[in-house]
Amino acid sequence: MPNLIRITDPADPRIAAYCHVRERDLVGRDDHFIAEGEVVLRTLLESERHQPVSLLIDEKRVDGLGNITGRLAEDVPVYVASQAVLDGIVGFHIHRGILALGHRAPAPTADALLAGLSGRALVVVLMGIANHDNLGGIFRNAAAFGADAILLDAHCCDPFYRKAIRVSVGNTLTLPHAKLEPAEDVVALLERHGFTAVSLSPNGAFRLAELKRPARVAVLLGTEGPGLDAAVLARTLTVRIPMAAGVDSLNVATTSGIVLHQLTQAAVDEEPA
Amino acid sequence: MPNLIRITDPADPRIAAYCHVRERDLVGRDDHFIAEGEVVLRTLLESERHQPVSLLIDEKRVDGLGNITGRLAEDVPVYVASQAVLDGIVGFHIHRGILALGHRAPAPTADALLAGLSGRALVVVLMGIANHDNLGGIFRNAAAFGADAILLDAHCCDPFYRKAIRVSVGNTLTLPHAKLEPAEDVVALLERHGFTAVSLSPNGAFRLAELKRPARVAVLLGTEGPGLDAAVLARTLTVRIPMAAGVDSLNVATTSGIVLHQLTQAAVDEEPA
Repeated sequence: MPNLIRITDPADPRIAAYCHVRERDLVGRDDHFIAEGEVVLRTLLESERHQPVSLLIDEKRVDGLGNITGRLAEDVPVYVASQAVLDGIVGFHIHRGILALGHRAPAPTADALLAGLSGRALVVVLMGIANHDNLGGIFRNAAAFGADAILLDAHCCDPFYRKAIRVSVGNTLTLPHAKLEPAEDVVALLERHGFTAVSLSPNGAFRLAELKRPARVAVLLGTEGPGLDAAVLARTLTVRIPMAAGVDSLNVATTSGIVLHQLTQAAVDEEPA
Repeated sequence: MPNLIRITDPADPRIAAYCHVRERDLVGRDDHFIAEGEVVLRTLLESERHQPVSLLIDEKRVDGLGNITGRLAEDVPVYVASQAVLDGIVGFHIHRGILALGHRAPAPTADALLAGLSGRALVVVLMGIANHDNLGGIFRNAAAFGADAILLDAHCCDPFYRKAIRVSVGNTLTLPHAKLEPAEDVVALLERHGFTAVSLSPNGAFRLAELKRPARVAVLLGTEGPGLDAAVLARTLTVRIPMAAGVDSLNVATTSGIVLHQLTQAAVDEEPA
């Protein structure tokens, strides 16, 4: 039986973690996160990577969400409120009617994450992706094409931000990822673990369609504007996606989908050792 | 010299077309549209497909936008206002500091549009794409990969909506497109014009990576949820993008990028007649 607790006062201290979600998102929240919507919540519960701390749901949806609340441990409270109280708590209209407070599992180091992957592995490395829509879209694509892990440099936004989780359809909660240290040399790290590093760049030396998949491969993506650092491009295999004249670039999330499709559909160039 | 006119009252009737832009977007606006931002405005002026009626800009940006206002015809007024008056007019904070009211050129029929294309042509057909982000993203990708035209069924949203224009980076203003009639049989239309119709579907008969490009090809995309009608799938070449187990689908704009990359990078299967 889910542990249902009725909330009638938006200022109730038991649901303080849900207050003014939008503003609090922007400043980060230690090792907790807020997830919203039924699909994302189901993903959270199925993956078991991170732990739900509590749920907050619209009273009209208590019955309809029984398949989610029914699988919670008994010590996870399910706070129930009217739509008006719900909106008062979070500070905007929650049309999905379900939120969860989660606790993040400790993140592995990038080194440990790569060391744990198999001989045939696909990794996405993000540098300076500061837009939550793009970050979430890349995680969604990485999951769709079976990428094994994502590395984020210190200039990327937080994959546990509510909007990034939602756009990723919950995949930021399930796909293994690690944050690089501010001074960490990711190219050297990838080399040490036997990964071929492929950098996307409008001036890349090779056409993407020519690219065959190495057994251990890492795809490096930078921001739409300045792109990847010249120092990174100089030390990696650079690849371009040919475009029509006058068009400057593709959206970076779309780019990730195109590259991952190419890498997972192209023939394997070498077998894992 | 640009025709600069200072506006100090948000209720000034000369700028009535810009009032409460966000609400008005949702109800459509006959044969006019609102475009925003410097990149989009430059695209509008360079393409000459649609005509600017007036501009509304932040007084702080008058000098910096001289390269745009300087190329306007003298009968196109440039209204100038403080940021506070600007925000009062449009109803929210305009951080891009530049808006234009444009007049749409008459749209061709789908039949006329296809008839005017060359023997080697790539067309995207959208069915039920009701989300402006997705619609804009598809136009951006279509432009990036040199698609010749886009057809929209009667259930698609309006490519002249402000947000669709912005997300497309102005490409909804430049890429030729036509709206299908509510009862129009697009498969028959494409056949009549010698196009091979390729439908994207999770259960498609062929893997996308196997697809070679026909000289005249149309890519049909439906919504992420229900997808394309069974009646359409039954009469077209169906193609799937293989995905990891447990992942239901890709975002439709991302899908368009993957398909267009495949079609424009794959070898040509047959020469135009």
